[in-house]
This record gives sequence, C-alpha cells and structure tokens, in this order.
Amino acid sequence: MPSSAEKLFVVIMAGGSGTRFWPLSRARRPKQLLPFAGGKSLLRATVERVAPMVPWSRILVVTVAGVAEAVAAELPELPAANLLVEPVGRDTAACVGWVAWRLAAEAPGSVMAVLPADHVIGDAAVLRRTLAAGAAAAYAHDALVTLGVRPSRPETGFGYLELGGEVPPIAGQTVRRVVRFIEKPDRERAEAFVASGNHLWNAGMFVWTVAAIDRAIRTHLPALAEGLDAIVAGGAAAADRLYAGLPRVSIDFGVMEKAAGVLALPVTFDWSDVGSWPGLAEVLGDAAGVRLGDVVALDSDGAILASDGPLLAAIGVPDVVVVATRDAVLVVPKAQAQRVRELVERLRDAGRDDVL
Amino acid sequence: MPSSAEKLFVVIMAGGSGTRFWPLSRARRPKQLLPFAGGKSLLRATVERVAPMVPWSRILVVTVAGVAEAVAAELPELPAANLLVEPVGRDTAACVGWVAWRLAAEAPGSVMAVLPADHVIGDAAVLRRTLAAGAAAAYAHDALVTLGVRPSRPETGFGYLELGGEVPPIAGQTVRRVVRFIEKPDRERAEAFVASGNHLWNAGMFVWTVAAIDRAIRTHLPALAEGLDAIVAGGAAAADRLYAGLPRVSIDFGVMEKAAGVLALPVTFDWSDVGSWPGLAEVLGDAAGVRLGDVVALDSDGAILASDGPLLAAIGVPDVVVVATRDAVLVVPKAQAQRVRELVERLRDAGRDDVL
Repeated sequence: MPSSAEKLFVVIMAGGSGTRFWPLSRARRPKQLLPFAGGKSLLRATVERVAPMVPWSRILVVTVAGVAEAVAAELPELPAANLLVEPVGRDTAACVGWVAWRLAAEAPGSVMAVLPADHVIGDAAVLRRTLAAGAAAAYAHDALVTLGVRPSRPETGFGYLELGGEVPPIAGQTVRRVVRFIEKPDRERAEAFVASGNHLWNAGMFVWTVAAIDRAIRTHLPALAEGLDAIVAGGAAAADRLYAGLPRVSIDFGVMEKAAGVLALPVTFDWSDVGSWPGLAEVLGDAAGVRLGDVVALDSDGAILASDGPLLAAIGVPDVVVVATRDAVLVVPKAQAQRVRELVERLRDAGRDDVL
Repeated sequence: MPSSAEKLFVVIMAGGSGTRFWPLSRARRPKQLLPFAGGKSLLRATVERVAPMVPWSRILVVTVAGVAEAVAAELPELPAANLLVEPVGRDTAACVGWVAWRLAAEAPGSVMAVLPADHVIGDAAVLRRTLAAGAAAAYAHDALVTLGVRPSRPETGFGYLELGGEVPPIAGQTVRRVVRFIEKPDRERAEAFVASGNHLWNAGMFVWTVAAIDRAIRTHLPALAEGLDAIVAGGAAAADRLYAGLPRVSIDFGVMEKAAGVLALPVTFDWSDVGSWPGLAEVLGDAAGVRLGDVVALDSDGAILASDGPLLAAIGVPDVVVVATRDAVLVVPKAQAQRVRELVERLRDAGRDDVL
C-alpha cells in the first residue's frame, strides 16, 4: 500500500501531566519524560518505535505549555514546526482535532496514526506492521480504525472494545468491526470478556484518514469543530486566545464511542499504559521488583524502589513503593499506591508548588 | 561543699561516630551533633545542662579528628584549649585517661565529672544536683563514683549496677557501694533487677578525683597508663604519633568493672542513650511517632519520619523508619532498625564513602 504509507503521519500525544508517579513526575516532568523504557523516556521510546516507518518530517508531537521545552530537548531530531504546543491541556479530542485541522490544511488526504507517548509496548515491529495495516484499512475504508490489544488477563483497569464481523483482511491483518466501546468493567465482566475471545483492550491507539476524523468531530463534537475552525482561521495568536475554550473531552468518549463504522485491528503484544507504580512494576520489574537509580536493598524483593539522585537504601520492606528525589521522597505500600493522588492534592492545597 | 564544686571539671565525651542513625548521622556528623534535643544537638543540650554549675573554662570536650570542627562550631563559647581532639578514637578509657592525665598536670587535686555527649536527660536540675553530690562524694572518699539511673522498665539494652551497702549520704543524696557491674541482661534477669530495687542502669556518667582515676588506670590498664605518660611527656606531636597505639577498651570494662570501692549515686529521671531510631522515638516521639523536618504523613501514626532537607511524604506506613537527606534515603521497619549497621557495613564494603 505505498499510497497509504506515504500519506501516513504519526501523531504522538505527549501532553499528559499525571501525578501518579510523584515525586518522580512533576508538573514540568510528566510521566512520558520519565526513564521508564530501559533508561530512555517513554516519549523517546514511543518515537523510536515508529521512526523506522516514517521520516521525522511526518512525526508530529503534541504537548502542552510548561512541558514543551523538555519534550523538544528529548527529541532533538524533531523539526520545530512538528511540535504543537497546546496553551492548556483540553484532553485528547481537542489534541487530536487540532492536528487533524492542521493536516487538513497542509496535507489533505493524509492518514493519521495517533499514539499516546506514555505507554510501554513489547514488540515495536508488530506495532509498525499493525500501524501500516491500519493506515491501509483507514485509507481503503476512509474510516476510523482503532488498535485493540488482545487481553492477557481480566484487567479491570482498562476499557474494552467489543468486536463485530470481519471485513476483508489488509496486509495479512484481520480487520473487525467494533460493536461498542465498554468502560472499565468489573471483575466478572472482565473475565467474561477474556473468555469470549471477542473483546480487546482499548489501548488508545488510532489510525484514520484526516477526512474521516474531521467528519466525525464535526458530527459528534460540533462545538470542538467550531472552535478549531476559529483557531485555524486566526493563526497562532488565536490558539492562545481560544484553546482554553475548547470542550474538554476524550476522543474515546467524545467521538469513538459514538461514531458508526469504527474498525478494529487486533494486535498481540505486551502493552501497558503504566498507570501507577505497581503498573510500572508489571512491565519493568522482575521478582526483585523495580530498581531505578542508585538503590541498595536488603530483603526487599518485590519492592518498587526508584531514585533519580539520592542513594536509596531499603531494608526488609518487600511491599512498599519508595521514590526518592533530591527534594522529595515518597513512601507508600504498593497496595495503597493510588493514594499518591490524594497526597498530591494535599500538597497542592498546602501551596507546596515547590515540590509539585 | 564549696571545695569540691570549685575543683569540678565537667568532661564531655563527644567522640562517638555511630552509624545507627545513618543517613542522618555520618562520619563527619555523628549522633551527638544531630538535632535530637528539641531542635538542638544532643551535644549542645549536654553542655547547656551543666553550664549553670561550672564556667566554660572548666568544661572540657573530647572529640575526634574529622568531627572536631563541627563540634567547635556547635560550642562557640568553649575555649579552644578546652577542646581535646583525639587523632583517632580509642574508646572511652583512653578518652577519659587522656583528660585525667592533662588535669593531673594542670589542675591536680581536681574532680572530674564525665558525661557522654549523646544522651537525652529529662531533668537537668536533678542531674546538676547529683553531679554536685557526686563531686562531693568523690572528693570525700577520693573514689570512683558512678551515677546510676533507677530503672523504669526491664530494659535488656542497658548494663546494670548491683548496689551494696550505703555510705553516709552527701548533700542529701544517698550514696551506695557498687557490688558489681552487669552486662546487658536477658529479659528474665532484667525483670528481677527492676523488682529487686537494688539495681540501677549504668548510664555511663562518672565522677571521680583525678587522683582516683589515675590510680585506677595505672592498676587496671597499665598499658594505657604507659601510653598516656609517653603522650604527656612528648606534647601534641606525641599524641598524633602514639594515640593510635593506646589500648582500645571502654572505661566500664577496663576500669569500673574491676576497681574496688566504686560508689554509686542513684538518680531518678528520664534518661536514654538514644541508641537507635526506636530509642529516639521513646524520648522524642508521641503517639504520632517522630516527625523531624519537612514531613507530610497520611495514616502513618507511629512511624519515625525524619528529614534534614527533602519533603518526606508517607502514606499508610505506621511501622517504618524513613530518614531522608539530600544524598541518601533509608527505609526500614521499626522492628528491624538495628539492621542499619549491617547496611552501613555493606556500603563501606562497596566503597560508598560518598554517603558514609
């Protein structure tokens, strides 16, 4: 499919500023910039996974003010014009729409693959093959295509796709219709999904023609389409003025769950959205747990121990997360790791921006 | 007893370089320099306890090379000549002997009170009254006098004194003969000691005439006496050359346990040698545990949380010790706090002098 491959742009969403990896993640150093990919940042690893299939000129990175300099420093090969900086984050629909509107003006007829910058993926070659097939499918059907990961366990922390009938395979890749998107299920439903063989994890990775996403946003998020029209008409200054007024909604909820004719490409690889320290342990750790940076541990197999500076010494604490930085240290049992958000809220309320 | 009070020198042993409070304590910042006395160092608090009873000119502080500058900075009022710096630490017999030999030359006939710099004492006025009575008793009997703390619990971590008959009280203070010194007992014996009412904790605080300790060292530690004679004869350069060759033994084991005619003054106050993080919690902490420095804790009552720089954030860890510094962080369950020494050994073996 040379036609679709030549028209493919890879859009990397690198605007997140989560707090779940505090104190390693900070307002100006969000998760995608952390060295969670074998010493590399998740962002860098995401770009390197697709770099063999598209030139840097067709990689677009969307990030947010405050993080943009760090993102640019992480990707020195990226042309400056290919870094889109949102004045403020407005969730993924605005992010994706903004790029689509730009490509509609500059490269109409092109195909967009959209990837989050903060996921861990086991097999880059499989990803590239699937993206290429996805581009071909999107091009052939002028459709919205989503990649779905074959579930390896009844995970309740992810959304699922329910698959419908097959359409003709493309590039050797099965293509299925999506019946519906399903929010995070309870344990019982998750087990049924895995048993059915008919459900995939919604991994937040999409491929579509610019025309198809343009139509879908105009149909399902007309307020967003109107705002983007105004921004494109008004130039850079207009983005600064108008971006904050865009509706704040995810592309999943705002478009994909509502759109008809969505196609899915099942893909099988190790995949994680690395949503928490224990989630990181699943992809990075082994029986000893996670060890990042200068760590000395006695009798602490299973602990998640990360430092980006100080020597971190642990004795007899197999069940904890300890994160050490020069100016902040966190200690929490693995089972309570989600409470980091509560702590960050408390620090924010206390005006502790010095450590956020 | 004006005669004994006027002859009293207070000698503070500030040479320790323990590792049990690592990473807050370091080779160059041992326990006695840590702010464990209400924001003050233990050393400073020790000196301030006795300052109302003796002028600075009769306070002598013994420390060790490498720590001397920090000790001097902590005690700017101390005359430079009153800071004795051991070239290397050789345990308490050498430390005490060195001062005794100097006083024998410069102030013969004086009385020495010897206090460790790293203990916490609840009632300074009681301490001063007891030291004054001890000085009078030492002077009256030309004897070795030890202060013994009335045990408040069957502690197995301290040595004990077994008391014998009374000698006439001095300054309203009971004076008893010491039958024997007893090493750290097991639980059963410790309970028997407390029940007997006839045993005191050996608190390592002594009062004696210079003549009595001189005689006792010459009798029980002749090699030390010989070494000290050579050092005194040879001047400062001799100490540098010969000090490392002095026998390494504690004053308790080397002299007090062997000497006849030792007297004890029972004293009742809160006292701790602050031998570990949990030991510190006993004297510094409350139901919430210990909080030193910039600490935010959720559901962690009982934890020992200390920082001398970074924000230390703890969630759901009531049973741990966490110590955070700019360059090293320690996490260990309270029940395993004694393993800090094992960790420090390991760091030493690994050549990690940067954090020791």
